[in-house]
Amino acid sequence: MTSYIAIDWGSTNLRAWHYQAGVCIDERRSEAGVTRLGDRTPAEVFASVTAGWPVNDVPVVMAGMVGSNAGWLSVPYLSCPVALGEIAGRLTRVEEKAWIVPGLSVERADNYNVMRGEETQLLGAVELQPAPLYVMPGTHAKWVQMEQDRVLDFRTVMTGELHHLLLKQSLIGAGLPEQQANAAAFHEGVQVGSNDASILSRLFEVRASHVLGARDRRHISDFLSGLLIGHEVALMTQQANATSQPITIIAGSALAQRYQQALQFIGMDSVTLEGDRAFQHGIRSIANVLAN
Amino acid sequence: MTSYIAIDWGSTNLRAWHYQAGVCIDERRSEAGVTRLGDRTPAEVFASVTAGWPVNDVPVVMAGMVGSNAGWLSVPYLSCPVALGEIAGRLTRVEEKAWIVPGLSVERADNYNVMRGEETQLLGAVELQPAPLYVMPGTHAKWVQMEQDRVLDFRTVMTGELHHLLLKQSLIGAGLPEQQANAAAFHEGVQVGSNDASILSRLFEVRASHVLGARDRRHISDFLSGLLIGHEVALMTQQANATSQPITIIAGSALAQRYQQALQFIGMDSVTLEGDRAFQHGIRSIANVLAN
Repeated sequence: MTSYIAIDWGSTNLRAWHYQAGVCIDERRSEAGVTRLGDRTPAEVFASVTAGWPVNDVPVVMAGMVGSNAGWLSVPYLSCPVALGEIAGRLTRVEEKAWIVPGLSVERADNYNVMRGEETQLLGAVELQPAPLYVMPGTHAKWVQMEQDRVLDFRTVMTGELHHLLLKQSLIGAGLPEQQANAAAFHEGVQVGSNDASILSRLFEVRASHVLGARDRRHISDFLSGLLIGHEVALMTQQANATSQPITIIAGSALAQRYQQALQFIGMDSVTLEGDRAFQHGIRSIANVLAN
Repeated sequence: MTSYIAIDWGSTNLRAWHYQAGVCIDERRSEAGVTRLGDRTPAEVFASVTAGWPVNDVPVVMAGMVGSNAGWLSVPYLSCPVALGEIAGRLTRVEEKAWIVPGLSVERADNYNVMRGEETQLLGAVELQPAPLYVMPGTHAKWVQMEQDRVLDFRTVMTGELHHLLLKQSLIGAGLPEQQANAAAFHEGVQVGSNDASILSRLFEVRASHVLGARDRRHISDFLSGLLIGHEVALMTQQANATSQPITIIAGSALAQRYQQALQFIGMDSVTLEGDRAFQHGIRSIANVLAN
């Protein structure tokens, strides 16, 4: 069993795990995501986070925004279509035994897209839970079309970021009381959002409906969540020509449940795969290649 | 010819005009929109803005967010469908000779909407430039379906606010250089936005296209503007079952030109009507009723 260090280094956070003979024996977290390095260099943050770990003896595999032009080093994207098996051979070395995983891109006139970090989850997911279509919900949700272990195409919907912006920065959320979870409001949102291409004209209605007293002002967050996710799943499954095969949702349980519910509403089966588990599995498969 | 005072009192600004025998003899502006009153009451701002004007002798007609629950007094909406001719009889008096114009609402399960201020422009527009469909671009663009002087239905698209949020607060605009006007980028945006229901998956592509070097980083604002407006005009003309009759755009010239270009691209004729002119004409028609 391989010994290695795995680092998930994103925009706002960093998490690191030390595996010895395949078992995680230590885990660390830091808020030094690549947008929050302060006056430290990535190499300094790296040294501090891995202090006491055998970084000169075992391979260190890093994924995420650490490979962007705002990170440690700008690592070129692998352009789709691409087999995930190619990733381990296309790492960029930044220290004696530390490598950064390349992100994926799509560069066609009808689709420009990029991902960094999700490719590592996909690498794990194709082994743990093969599927022709993955959805990876979050700030920037990714919809990934696969053919075995080849990534054919992917698209991004800024669902999480839009929900935050609309609720916190736009007129929709202005003056609202503290929001409460409400499953019925979420479900209503899914119903409206999934049945209608006119999402942009629906957004103002969220505001108008509570101004007119037609919707509880404490349930706007969940209604808006349903509206955006409902629209997203209807649009993206159609665009991907999703068949009756189940879709795999790669996410934490709370978010996975929302997507599962929305997919169910439009008649699509789905299975879930925990995002952390997929990431760890992906890093391990790269570490195994490096060790051999 | 009637003498009166007209006030356009919105969220962020206030403009006031003194008409004597039908001729504007003085005009004033203030930044004391209803969200920026500071510690003054609306009545105090009113007294200060109209100082020296004959507010006890001639009617004062006010329109806009001054009639909202955040304004001087919450003036009930007139619910659509409604004839614009009813407005003059449904004013709310706040001072001896000062009235606030009611906004309009739609309250149906498939459409909740509100407007305050635009109804006064519509009142002018139906006389100056009758049309079955008006579009009133801006922060919250209104699309209004008419039957002669009756407002049948209207919807709102938060195009202006979304453009601002996405460019200034989201990842799309992060780190961009100063933006330059670029007609070709706007036109490209219109092409993509008007041909595609998947606007939410197109937004991230705006980011990815400049990250990948496929689009000039100084033209993102205009491309995004085209994308949003192109999508809006395609969606809303379809939703309104717009016929071949020309659509009337009520706006200032710069914004009107963008909408005219986007409508032309999808094969729809349009005519423009200056928003200020429509507003002044609408207020005058109300003042005429009050004077008689």
